Amino acid sequence: MARLVMKFGGTSVADIDRIRNVAQHVKREVDAGHQVAVVVSAMSGKTNELVRWCAELSPLYDPQEYDAVVASGEQVTAGLLAIALQTVEVTARSWQGWQLPIGTSNAHGSARILDINGDEIVKGFEDRGEVAVIAGFQGIHTETGRLTTLGRGGSDTSAVAIAAAIKADRCDIYTDVDGVYTTDPRVVGKAQRMDKIAFEEMLELASLGAKVMQVRSIELAMVHNVRVFVRSSFDKPEDIDPHGTPPGTLICDETEIMEQQVVTGIAFSKDEAQISIRRVQDKPGVAAAIFGPLAESNINVDMIVQNVSADGATTDLTFTVPAADYQRANDVLTKSKSQIGYDRIDGATDVAKVSVIGIGMRSHAGVAAQAFKALAERGINIRAITTSEIKFSLLIESAYTELAVRTLHSLYGLDKA
Amino acid sequence: MARLVMKFGGTSVADIDRIRNVAQHVKREVDAGHQVAVVVSAMSGKTNELVRWCAELSPLYDPQEYDAVVASGEQVTAGLLAIALQTVEVTARSWQGWQLPIGTSNAHGSARILDINGDEIVKGFEDRGEVAVIAGFQGIHTETGRLTTLGRGGSDTSAVAIAAAIKADRCDIYTDVDGVYTTDPRVVGKAQRMDKIAFEEMLELASLGAKVMQVRSIELAMVHNVRVFVRSSFDKPEDIDPHGTPPGTLICDETEIMEQQVVTGIAFSKDEAQISIRRVQDKPGVAAAIFGPLAESNINVDMIVQNVSADGATTDLTFTVPAADYQRANDVLTKSKSQIGYDRIDGATDVAKVSVIGIGMRSHAGVAAQAFKALAERGINIRAITTSEIKFSLLIESAYTELAVRTLHSLYGLDKA
Repeated sequence: MARLVMKFGGTSVADIDRIRNVAQHVKREVDAGHQVAVVVSAMSGKTNELVRWCAELSPLYDPQEYDAVVASGEQVTAGLLAIALQTVEVTARSWQGWQLPIGTSNAHGSARILDINGDEIVKGFEDRGEVAVIAGFQGIHTETGRLTTLGRGGSDTSAVAIAAAIKADRCDIYTDVDGVYTTDPRVVGKAQRMDKIAFEEMLELASLGAKVMQVRSIELAMVHNVRVFVRSSFDKPEDIDPHGTPPGTLICDETEIMEQQVVTGIAFSKDEAQISIRRVQDKPGVAAAIFGPLAESNINVDMIVQNVSADGATTDLTFTVPAADYQRANDVLTKSKSQIGYDRIDGATDVAKVSVIGIGMRSHAGVAAQAFKALAERGINIRAITTSEIKFSLLIESAYTELAVRTLHSLYGLDKA
Repeated sequence: MARLVMKFGGTSVADIDRIRNVAQHVKREVDAGHQVAVVVSAMSGKTNELVRWCAELSPLYDPQEYDAVVASGEQVTAGLLAIALQTVEVTARSWQGWQLPIGTSNAHGSARILDINGDEIVKGFEDRGEVAVIAGFQGIHTETGRLTTLGRGGSDTSAVAIAAAIKADRCDIYTDVDGVYTTDPRVVGKAQRMDKIAFEEMLELASLGAKVMQVRSIELAMVHNVRVFVRSSFDKPEDIDPHGTPPGTLICDETEIMEQQVVTGIAFSKDEAQISIRRVQDKPGVAAAIFGPLAESNINVDMIVQNVSADGATTDLTFTVPAADYQRANDVLTKSKSQIGYDRIDGATDVAKVSVIGIGMRSHAGVAAQAFKALAERGINIRAITTSEIKFSLLIESAYTELAVRTLHSLYGLDKA
């Protein structure tokens, strides 16, 4: 017997038939003798509808009321799934965030989970053999007694946090892909599904554009060491052997991964823009003069490259921002020209960031050097480089993205046999 | 300054534009200096959609889960109206049943309100000048912590109960008609809107087919002496003088009505069927033998007429049931024929019940006799008669319904000048 959390997103519960299908997935695990807590999102489209209504009434809606409105979507799905489970003779009941409760911060619309009381869930398991169907995405700020929501993709975070609270053996994330791949299979036909990936690697992959899970939920899983299994919700429940090993990717502590590869995945993002500030005065405080105004304007600066000054007086400074913020960043910097002191701004929006991720890099030297060589052989120019312990990222011309990803995927031995 | 409850039904909050319109109604009262609690239903159609989903999953759905699903509709409207109010600079917040709380019985799907804590509403009025926007129709069973709903039309009951809890001066029911009429204006063109009607009279009118308000909510208003004002939600908010007397009908204690008319209204219902059991044995226990099985089959028996036996051994017994239950009632009685002991059953579904209501009847003799005479003059045959202190009902052939209603409406001086 294991204790499981099963999470189903909006497309998996989009209509009554799919909710019935989810019930079969749950029943399979219950029949195999497991204790199960299910976390559900709103039926797909519902959250958007509710958000649109709030925005129609006021672009500056009260986030407390927004949360009261939007949290209703998950409430509906939880109740419906409980009914669907009872219909197939699985004992089940729904739980809303405030009923457990799932205590959160007061940051309405993007609240953080502070504390989950899992006692009632476990009591349901042990006293009544009952499946807990929990509304994801929502919680309560206990001091004010008001509903909160966790922000987009919050149901993943709910699922992981509940798994931590009830000490689940595993948190299964049912999604529209059957696992985490070494890179985007649409770009590299030879991309492979990984059986396992370490939390740190998944975190880098997720931040860098792989859209399988929310970054927040992976951080949470890492901190609480919750084993997360990403699998497909489109597999037919009756085709799955509950005692076998279903297709999917386990996100876990690196110690669980016997043979760690040097490189586990390649991520990329085309939504990047490059800004180079030419002949900036090379003196203390100039970085603050540049990045301060950008931060105030809520522009997320990513790769920053500053060369050592050649003339001792001025230097060039290059960084990237999301492509959507490119014009705004230019405006901010132009306005601050006199305070910063620079010659001119160059920029480009036809750039892409390619990242190579692998925990094994920590103990292997020269991993990045191999990449520089392989890309140079293909005539791909590298505009900027940043590195961390377990990844490095390269800024290149975006036309070369697919070529670069394929080249690196082969180079590090990730191609499917 | 007065303290008001304003209740808006599903059609009044059917879309974002109508919710904005409701906000203007509320703002008008707030600007006039009143303390306001608003009770809202779900957007029209939403509750039906949620109910349908539950029923699709299982005709025998768990009523606890049904309540969790269905209560979400009012939650959405309450949050949206709070946003709409803030947009027009009215301080407001939403309250769900469990937040106040509104404590109810455990009868999921048709729970009774047991206790409302109005402290937070009043605190909002007095400390923050805040409008309370309360989700109608829902509550919480505090022992189990589960959501409950009050059954169809429950928002009227919520509104009256909240008015009682916060000692409101008046409970305004905004609906699609502009008040209570002496009879159905579609049948009698000369029907008049009443300025005032006593609780007891309204109770009779509501039970007898006038669909303005739920019977339960009027009972509650009578017990707690909550003055209820029925008015139209289609009046333009800007056309209403908050200090004037708007069109509508006040339902109140009879002592508030200076000059009580003998008859205040005529109600009628065509959804009736008549059953006559011929030559029933006239002995103790026979009524139980007839009505026991009907009650067990959940068939609501209304008018019962039993003549004094002529031969001392058998008698005829006539009663009415809802037309929809006619066949079922016949089947039940046929099955019990040997236990009951009777000759045969006659029946008719082409019958209608016409009722004349008025508190003044208590002190006026001969009111019913006038009706018998007037109907006889029109050739309308009376099949059965029942009377109570403040009303009498006549069973007639349904083809004569409109004629009878118009005749009685004129007879008792209710025609508009």
